Amino acid sequence: MPENRPVFILVRPQMGENIGAAARAMWNFGLRDLRLVAPRDGWPNRAADDTSSGALDEMGEVRVFSTLAEAAADVQFSFAVTARPRDIAKPVFTPNGAIADITTRAGQKTGFVLGPERTGLENDEVALCHAILTIPANPAFPALNLAQSVLLIAWEIFKSNDATAAIEARHEPAKLADFEAMFARLEGLLKDGGFFKTDIQKPTMIRNLRAMLMRGEWSEQEIRTFQGILSALTGKNKV
Amino acid sequence: MPENRPVFILVRPQMGENIGAAARAMWNFGLRDLRLVAPRDGWPNRAADDTSSGALDEMGEVRVFSTLAEAAADVQFSFAVTARPRDIAKPVFTPNGAIADITTRAGQKTGFVLGPERTGLENDEVALCHAILTIPANPAFPALNLAQSVLLIAWEIFKSNDATAAIEARHEPAKLADFEAMFARLEGLLKDGGFFKTDIQKPTMIRNLRAMLMRGEWSEQEIRTFQGILSALTGKNKV
Repeated sequence: MPENRPVFILVRPQMGENIGAAARAMWNFGLRDLRLVAPRDGWPNRAADDTSSGALDEMGEVRVFSTLAEAAADVQFSFAVTARPRDIAKPVFTPNGAIADITTRAGQKTGFVLGPERTGLENDEVALCHAILTIPANPAFPALNLAQSVLLIAWEIFKSNDATAAIEARHEPAKLADFEAMFARLEGLLKDGGFFKTDIQKPTMIRNLRAMLMRGEWSEQEIRTFQGILSALTGKNKV
Repeated sequence: MPENRPVFILVRPQMGENIGAAARAMWNFGLRDLRLVAPRDGWPNRAADDTSSGALDEMGEVRVFSTLAEAAADVQFSFAVTARPRDIAKPVFTPNGAIADITTRAGQKTGFVLGPERTGLENDEVALCHAILTIPANPAFPALNLAQSVLLIAWEIFKSNDATAAIEARHEPAKLADFEAMFARLEGLLKDGGFFKTDIQKPTMIRNLRAMLMRGEWSEQEIRTFQGILSALTGKNKV
């Protein structure tokens, strides 16, 4: 199955720091086609190298263009990423909707277009894109940092490409018999120590004790560790 | 309907720029409880104010602590965010898995704990958390920027708050401080009992002990029960 590998185009980015952070975010999620339109401080850019943490060295050449029309010349479907509503008749997607959309475009060149930090894309630039992507956020504070927007979209793309299930590293719980042997010893030691005040309360206390100690799903090794704890606390070895 | 509003704890963050960007990312998605442990350049921090783009003014006080144990004292279930595999018996979650998990913890105080930019969390700090969160990424370039990790988690939380169904709270785990008080007593008693054979092994043994005892997510009542167990086994009352 072909994977989603869209292009990211940063239009008139101001801060090299943000370009580098955007590159790092892309490469964190296996995306490498970064294009710049008229970066304010030129290119290459020392601050971008720093914040990219090596991504710019690894991901391949960043191409620089004078206009968005040139940068997007080979793109077949693009999203203008913008927080502000635009008075322009384009479909508006959320990130999940946009990723669902490009997933249906196997073999097509797709792209995400982001404007300058302070002002965002101009209307004529939005007009060059096929759709609008708006990231839903806190209505009182909706404007994401440029590189944060890139990260969020790259993450959603990565997840859509990722067929592997969640990482599972749960350990192996011991068999009940191992637990029971330990618990029987504990019960005897607690009886000797006067833990059970009355015979009437004892069955309930035992059930509650069992619940709290079983909940950790201890491994065989951990049950041995607890046996060691019992020996150390009482000065009596396991029989 | 209660929403997921976890705490974010940045441990020994180095760059003010990253703290500010993390704050902005949190507030972009309506999260405001940011805590710092021993920030390298002190607090408040001019660079953080700049990159927060006003978020630090709006989201409320950032609290500063000396240790993770203090910063997380009221937290009931926390995730250590780490890219490296750790040789420690904790469940490992992806972001989606972690959000699914905290969604089942209605009414509980949950948190995400992130380490310094260069080195990440120390093993003893991971040991103070209940689970591990690893963000799946490009295997050749997996390390996300600190603020980018915060953004990504905050975004997933925001999405989950859109449409979470009400789920019955599971039982109420105790706050970390209650667990720590119990654990400190246990550690002292074990030391007296000769449990730690050598000083070299002790830190690893402590971490493993902590992992196995935290896994059960004991309630306050259960921690009191375990205190009673310690008294009964040793014949020494809690001081």
